[in-house]
Amino acid sequence: MDFFFKPRGIAVIGATPNPKGGLAILINLSKGFSGGIYPVNPRYAEIAGFACYPSILEVPDPVDLAIVFVPAPRVPEILAQCGQKGVKGVMLECAGFAETGPAGKSLQETVRSIGQKTGMRLWGPNCMGLFDAVNGHIFSFVSPAIWEEGLVPGGVSLIVQSGMLSGGFLVDTMSHGIMGVSKVCSIGNKVDVNECDLLEYLLADAQTSAIGLYLESFADGRRFFSLCRQAAKPIVLLKGGKSPRGAEAAMSHTASLAGNAGVMRGALSQAGVTEAHDFKQMMDLARALAMVPETLPGARGRIAILTYSGGAGILSSDFMHELGLEVSRLSPGTVEVLERLFPDWMPVKNPVDLWPAVEKHGGDAVYPRAVEAVLADPEVDAVLLHAFVGGFASNLDLERIAATAKSARKPVFIWLLGSRQAARDFHQQAQRLGFPVYRELYRAVECLAAVFAGGRRSAPAEASAA
Amino acid sequence: MDFFFKPRGIAVIGATPNPKGGLAILINLSKGFSGGIYPVNPRYAEIAGFACYPSILEVPDPVDLAIVFVPAPRVPEILAQCGQKGVKGVMLECAGFAETGPAGKSLQETVRSIGQKTGMRLWGPNCMGLFDAVNGHIFSFVSPAIWEEGLVPGGVSLIVQSGMLSGGFLVDTMSHGIMGVSKVCSIGNKVDVNECDLLEYLLADAQTSAIGLYLESFADGRRFFSLCRQAAKPIVLLKGGKSPRGAEAAMSHTASLAGNAGVMRGALSQAGVTEAHDFKQMMDLARALAMVPETLPGARGRIAILTYSGGAGILSSDFMHELGLEVSRLSPGTVEVLERLFPDWMPVKNPVDLWPAVEKHGGDAVYPRAVEAVLADPEVDAVLLHAFVGGFASNLDLERIAATAKSARKPVFIWLLGSRQAARDFHQQAQRLGFPVYRELYRAVECLAAVFAGGRRSAPAEASAA
Repeated sequence: MDFFFKPRGIAVIGATPNPKGGLAILINLSKGFSGGIYPVNPRYAEIAGFACYPSILEVPDPVDLAIVFVPAPRVPEILAQCGQKGVKGVMLECAGFAETGPAGKSLQETVRSIGQKTGMRLWGPNCMGLFDAVNGHIFSFVSPAIWEEGLVPGGVSLIVQSGMLSGGFLVDTMSHGIMGVSKVCSIGNKVDVNECDLLEYLLADAQTSAIGLYLESFADGRRFFSLCRQAAKPIVLLKGGKSPRGAEAAMSHTASLAGNAGVMRGALSQAGVTEAHDFKQMMDLARALAMVPETLPGARGRIAILTYSGGAGILSSDFMHELGLEVSRLSPGTVEVLERLFPDWMPVKNPVDLWPAVEKHGGDAVYPRAVEAVLADPEVDAVLLHAFVGGFASNLDLERIAATAKSARKPVFIWLLGSRQAARDFHQQAQRLGFPVYRELYRAVECLAAVFAGGRRSAPAEASAA
Repeated sequence: MDFFFKPRGIAVIGATPNPKGGLAILINLSKGFSGGIYPVNPRYAEIAGFACYPSILEVPDPVDLAIVFVPAPRVPEILAQCGQKGVKGVMLECAGFAETGPAGKSLQETVRSIGQKTGMRLWGPNCMGLFDAVNGHIFSFVSPAIWEEGLVPGGVSLIVQSGMLSGGFLVDTMSHGIMGVSKVCSIGNKVDVNECDLLEYLLADAQTSAIGLYLESFADGRRFFSLCRQAAKPIVLLKGGKSPRGAEAAMSHTASLAGNAGVMRGALSQAGVTEAHDFKQMMDLARALAMVPETLPGARGRIAILTYSGGAGILSSDFMHELGLEVSRLSPGTVEVLERLFPDWMPVKNPVDLWPAVEKHGGDAVYPRAVEAVLADPEVDAVLLHAFVGGFASNLDLERIAATAKSARKPVFIWLLGSRQAARDFHQQAQRLGFPVYRELYRAVECLAAVFAGGRRSAPAEASAA
């Protein structure tokens, strides 16, 4: 599958000088792809500075990948030429196939059989192609304006059956500068290349730490769950079409037959997959899992809550109860260390309300010492730190806390409140230092729970022993 | 209770020129309160430009409200003087009462009995007091830096048993410029004034459209649910301490005995109260309900989904199924109108994927016409509009859509994606025009569902008939 991700040469069939998809593909390639770029269109000799060829058969150099953006009925003829040229992979980004009804469905079957005959792998149709923020590859007709928002590289790769997730959603995500992505694969109708092929590829990809999927159907459930069970990387799945009307809409969208949601849930849990329920939440989960891919042996999710608010400590405890985490019972030694920071009247209990200590000694003194104390406690597997920045917030020495967390090898998750700009600056700094940061408390606990979810990291060993 | 919200004169007992709470109260009053301000402290003749009195008994003018911020053991003596002076309400903002153990508990009982003897109403102790963004009243020791973030006036009032919700959380909320508040009442240990007293007051308050509560205990469950059943305004409740460890923490925080979560849930639903589960989600729900306090007679939550993404349309359908909304079956007339916007191959179904129409005619032409068509449909009670702004987004004529929605008297909720600054600008504009806007899809559907939740708006009529 490397020919889809690292092709030597790319032909753009359906390239055009008009401001349409066929031009956008070319411009996107010119901005980040360093291999050969070959527009194909019999009506032009040159497009956007590239020599243009009447047919792919006229391209003088080797072409590993063809991106096809032509009216659907022309696709079979184009594919035949690609086969002749020796192309290895084709991205069919045009629509007009199974999603449009019986005629399109039959056309899609024709396309499938050409793929099988020629041995070419076919990606799509009805998809946005590939985005690779680490290598700067956009193999897509998405508007080149997406480059202006900046491609933020990160460790999360996505496999998505929705163009929005590789267009508008990425722009939104990246413009906050908090989370980046590695490879985003928009797979559309899955005539040949499906989520299993890509999952297998990404599980072996050194630039991918965690994988998120949005699927409307399973192309091969058995293979999918088998891959998940053996995966050494965290996987998060968001499944669309679980309701009757949702399933009906999935049929129009990507001609997907949705399966049984209950059966799926059990299989996911057995396979160690984290189930997501919304787009941003899927990204938040994947971000946490990419940042904390494993926990210490024996860690089972006993959490120390460090807060500046009694109310937030209480809700954190409620959420942990709901999501299978444990509010740690701190060791007597830890309580003793913390008591030195507190006024006499204040009993130290987890959740630890640091406010009275901060009032006495200042945040810069209290937060790092409290984090050190709880991280050193054998009863604590991770810390949920509540931070408030901007306005009248007390300082918080993030670098010192990061160093402590790193040497303890225990995750410190942060729930952040604060005035808009200060919170954004803090958020970016904290993410750089390795803290998963969330703006909603429930989300923070949910992502922390995913890190400790039932034997997730021990699943591969069990599967290979069986 | 007007003497708490609109007092003629306020004494600040425990005022000090040092940068502490007693000074902050004074500065906060000076910035927004136009009545008499009387610092009380025997050690100073003047503080922050105000004449200072050795005791409240020396204040020459009438004092309706005393804000007390002194060490807890001095409170009984102070209260006796307040009684002599004829003060009507006292806000006890100092801590050191029932939340600190048996001695504090006994002190709190003493305080309670002084209140009963003198007839003064006591608010607190262990609380942050009152914030009123509409009238610019901050009766609190919160850092005056909170003024720099701006107090954004709005229709949602809060009753909270957590200082954070009237401090850091408000700064966070207001700094986004999207949601404002009316009165925020931080009630602490509730020695006398409790959530019922304030709920009753706010239900009658012309500046309050919806009420959100964060409670760790019910002072008087019977009265609370009776008030809710008869309420003509939407009420949202977030209850802390529903888990064993959460309940334990609530005991340390505000000396609250938590009740049974299951019993509570049933009672809330019967009383037409929307139950929230997190801080921001509570505000999002309250914002929706304040903006859409009632729906048309007979409306039962049949929603038209207008999207630019098949995947997002599918998830919206799934969420509506889960949350008790109905994906409307559009009338033939509506389908006909929409079909004129679409390419021939595209069947029109709800969720309506507008993307092919936008590609053909542009967003400015398509969105308003599509919104008009579905709002005119008798099968549609509300619209969920998916918007993408910034980057390569197509335009969206928000003012025209607002005018249509207004004349149809049906709510249009917006789920918004977009690059950071563009999304913020759009969000603010849309809120001003009366659209509830959300950045997460599930949250948008959740808030829309709250608007149509089981007979919420018919509850008062039933209750008064019974």
